[in-house]
Parts: sequence; C-alpha cells; structure tokens
Amino acid sequence: QHQDSQKPVKVQELFVYEINERDRASPAFLKLSQKEVNSLGDLVPFSNKLYSGNLEKRLGITAGLCVLIQHVPEKKGDRYEAIYSFYFGDYGHISVQGAYLTYQDTYLAVTGGSGIFEGVYGQVKLQQLVFPFKLFYTFYLKGIPDLPAELLGNPVQPSPAVEPSPAAKATEPHACITNFTD
Amino acid sequence: QHQDSQKPVKVQELFVYEINERDRASPAFLKLSQKEVNSLGDLVPFSNKLYSGNLEKRLGITAGLCVLIQHVPEKKGDRYEAIYSFYFGDYGHISVQGAYLTYQDTYLAVTGGSGIFEGVYGQVKLQQLVFPFKLFYTFYLKGIPDLPAELLGNPVQPSPAVEPSPAAKATEPHACITNFTD
Amino acid sequence: QHQDSQKPVKVQELFVYEINERDRASPAFLKLSQKEVNSLGDLVPFSNKLYSGNLEKRLGITAGLCVLIQHVPEKKGDRYEAIYSFYFGDYGHISVQGAYLTYQDTYLAVTGGSGIFEGVYGQVKLQQLVFPFKLFYTFYLKGIPDLPAELLGNPVQPSPAVEPSPAAKATEPHACITNFTD
Repeated sequence: QHQDSQKPVKVQELFVYEINERDRASPAFLKLSQKEVNSLGDLVPFSNKLYSGNLEKRLGITAGLCVLIQHVPEKKGDRYEAIYSFYFGDYGHISVQGAYLTYQDTYLAVTGGSGIFEGVYGQVKLQQLVFPFKLFYTFYLKGIPDLPAELLGNPVQPSPAVEPSPAAKATEPHACITNFTD
Repeated sequence: QHQDSQKPVKVQELFVYEINERDRASPAFLKLSQKEVNSLGDLVPFSNKLYSGNLEKRLGITAGLCVLIQHVPEKKGDRYEAIYSFYFGDYGHISVQGAYLTYQDTYLAVTGGSGIFEGVYGQVKLQQLVFPFKLFYTFYLKGIPDLPAELLGNPVQPSPAVEPSPAAKATEPHACITNFTD
Repeated sequence: QHQDSQKPVKVQELFVYEINERDRASPAFLKLSQKEVNSLGDLVPFSNKLYSGNLEKRLGITAGLCVLIQHVPEKKGDRYEAIYSFYFGDYGHISVQGAYLTYQDTYLAVTGGSGIFEGVYGQVKLQQLVFPFKLFYTFYLKGIPDLPAELLGNPVQPSPAVEPSPAAKATEPHACITNFTD
C-alpha cells in the first residue's frame, strides 16, 4: 500500500512545448454532433510534436482524444475533456486527463506513465499560447527518480512567438532525444 | 518512489450526486455501430450536473465518454467502459475509469486529480438511482489532505426521489461552491 | 500524501492472455477519417477475452477504445493510443493507457484499479502474438496486497500457437474465476 506521511514528497518540474506544425493531419475534427456550432458529440483525435522547455530538443509527440463537452459562447470558446499521452522516445510516456478549455489555462491529472515515468503521479498545468497550435506545459511530477538532464534545462519564456531551434525542428541527431517518438 | 508500508492509509469518503436535468443536450448517443440494438461501436459523450451528497450545494459537472461494450439482453441493459472526470469548481477535479453497467452498481478506479485532488488515488462506487438521470457516488479517496467541510456533510439517503435543494438547483451563491463548474 | 523513500517497493508480476475468439463482434473499426489508409480520425472500440498466464482459467474481458494516431508505412503498421481496462470478475479491474503499436511491443501505464486492485500503479508490457487476435501482457504492479494464487501460476511461454485450455475456453466452473466477467 501507499503511505501517507508527514514527510514532504519531492516534486519535479518538467517543462514541454506541444506544437502543431500542420504536417501530421492533426487534429481530426469529427463533427459527429451534426450541429453547426461545436457541441457535445464532436470528437477530436489529435497528435502534435513535443519539444523540451528550452526548445533545443525534439522529444516526441502527444497522442489522444479530446471530447467536446460544450460550447461556451460568453468565452467564445469550448470545453473539452482531454485524454492523452506525452511520448518521450526511449524514456517512456506520461498519460494525463482533465479539462482543456480553449479560453483559459487548466490543470490536468497525471494518471500514470511508463519507462522512467513508471509510477508517476501529480498534475500538469496547460497554457495555450496560439490556439490550437502552440501549448506550454508545466508538469509537477511525484513518485519517480530524478529526471535526466536533457529533459530539464531552463524553459524559454512562453509566448505566442516561440519556435523550436532549427536543429530540433529538423530533428538533427544532437537536437533529439534517443529514438524520439515521431 | 511510493512506499509500501504496514501503516494503514487514511481513506476519505466523499459523496456526490450526478443529475441530468436535461438542459445540457447530454448525452450525445452516437449510433456509430449502425445497428438497431446498442452495440460495440456506439459512443456516448456526456456531461451532467454534480451536487454535494447532502444536496445543498451545486459543485460542478461531470464530463467524459462512455464506450458501449455490449448489450446484455438477460439483464435488459448494457455494459459501458466509462472514462470521465468530476469537476468541483476552484477545488479541481477527479478523473475515473471503469465499468458502467446500466443494471448493476460498479466500482471505478480513481486515476488522478488536480487542485486539492492532486495525487489522489482509490476507487469510487457508482449507484444508479434513475437510469440514466440520477446517480449516487461514494468516493474512497487516498493520498490527499483533508477535504474541505463544504464538500462533506451527511449525504441524503440515495433513492429515485432525491432532488437537489431549490437553492442549489437555482445556483444561488450560498448554495454553490466557489466558481462551481458549469 | 504519498511518500518517496529509499525502501524498494514490492513489484508483483501478473501474466494474462488477451484473445479475440471472434464471437464478441469486436473490434468495431470506425472509419471516421473517411480515408482509405488507416488515419487519425479512425476509432476502434474493442472487447476481448482474458485468460490467466497459464491458460487454465478464464478471467474476464478487456474493454475500451483505441484511437488511431498514425499509419506507419515503413513498419507496415499503425500507432494507436489505447485506453482500456482489464476485468477480473469479482476481483475487480485494472485500467491502463498508452501506445499500442501493431508492429512492436510497448509498455502502457497502469492508471488505477478497483477491488483487489484498488490503489494499483505501475506499468504493463504488451506483446502481440497474432495481430490482432492474441496478446500477452506482463503487469508490473505496485501498491496492492498479495495477489490470489489463482491469478498467478507459471505462464505458458508466449507464442502464436498458444490456446486456452479447452475447459477454460468452455468456461467450465473449475476453469473460471468467481463470476468471471463476460
């Protein structure tokens, strides 16, 4: 069994950028509601590219499903229930679930992981920079050993203008993690 | 890493009602199987309202997806795989996954959470009161600090006749949690 | 709260076979991408049978959803994001999420469970034996009490030729766990 304890648990922060470079035919917006406005019934499978917070390394991809929950006219946006994973090449993956609001930052649950992320728990902050093409994430991770240095490094300040380094975008070997997910 | 230990872990019970008041265009029953009887291939995105166990407070909403797994003729019902979250306004959310059977109570896994539910684990009992409009849940939560008083309180005994208090239904400020999810 | 600790956590291995005996109308391949080749947008709800690693006991079923992420022509296969559960009759269930690649073994996250699997975490190795009809899983489970003997036992060496025992396939009482999920 797990244990509750007075001792504080170590929290590791991990910063990543998710970028849609429009070369993966993503997202697939399935208008299954058959309504003109975005509505419950619409489903949005997606997969984007993942870069390190310092934008120097291509890490992998995201992959999963957004379930449209409601259109929010007063915010000119939508609420989705998001169920997806972040893939980090040979390092493994992190799965998450929670709200994706097109008009506001949210926190999602970290539900588990594999590889170096086996046994992970905690939460992740989602910040949208350019809808729906650039997002910045801050993971607050518990339950895992120290993360490798190449996943860390100082993040570039999130802004709509950020771009991965040309070497990372071109997936040059020194600018990718080992067997980065593609 | 987590730790296994002889020491028992504290379990907090949390009672909530999920009610479909037929004002959210939910559920969206997507008959993608193209069969007359409910069948594997049908998908059911949904979002309902969430009230405290004592029915005095509007808490938020549920949001997610039911995957129809099989029609069970001898029970005159259906098995779904349910993947969804419970939203509690500024307090955060809890994500769950497991079986939803239209003819029998089930236990689902608590897979994670955000806000005050960051790091949560455990399970939740689902009791259906009026198909598919009223459900009662008993969460057995571990890994989180003591829950706030306004989420607790003695639950109303579950029955098909239960209704939220008029103030909670009308989302009067004193009968809602802060920034309740809507 | 959880605790990180120097003390190693006990890992329990659990072996199961997932077999599609073509009698559950599974999978339901929803070609929602409307493209000829498998593409993002396609969704695949599924439910197969579950046997113990020694193939002597019918345990239950799997149930969930595969989200097609991309066709991988150089591997002549596909990447899916898989979100599903393993049901073990009265013992409860385990939920998992991660990559299913039709051409390569993967590790998925164990995101939670119910019953004897309440509070479970860890990962699971997925090995495909016959696409898409026979799979072998090795769970690495933490956070739960010792598993019951009838779920354990030496696994049959995974190969494309493995078959459940005739008694398990026929769901004879001595070859099923109690109230096996069907």
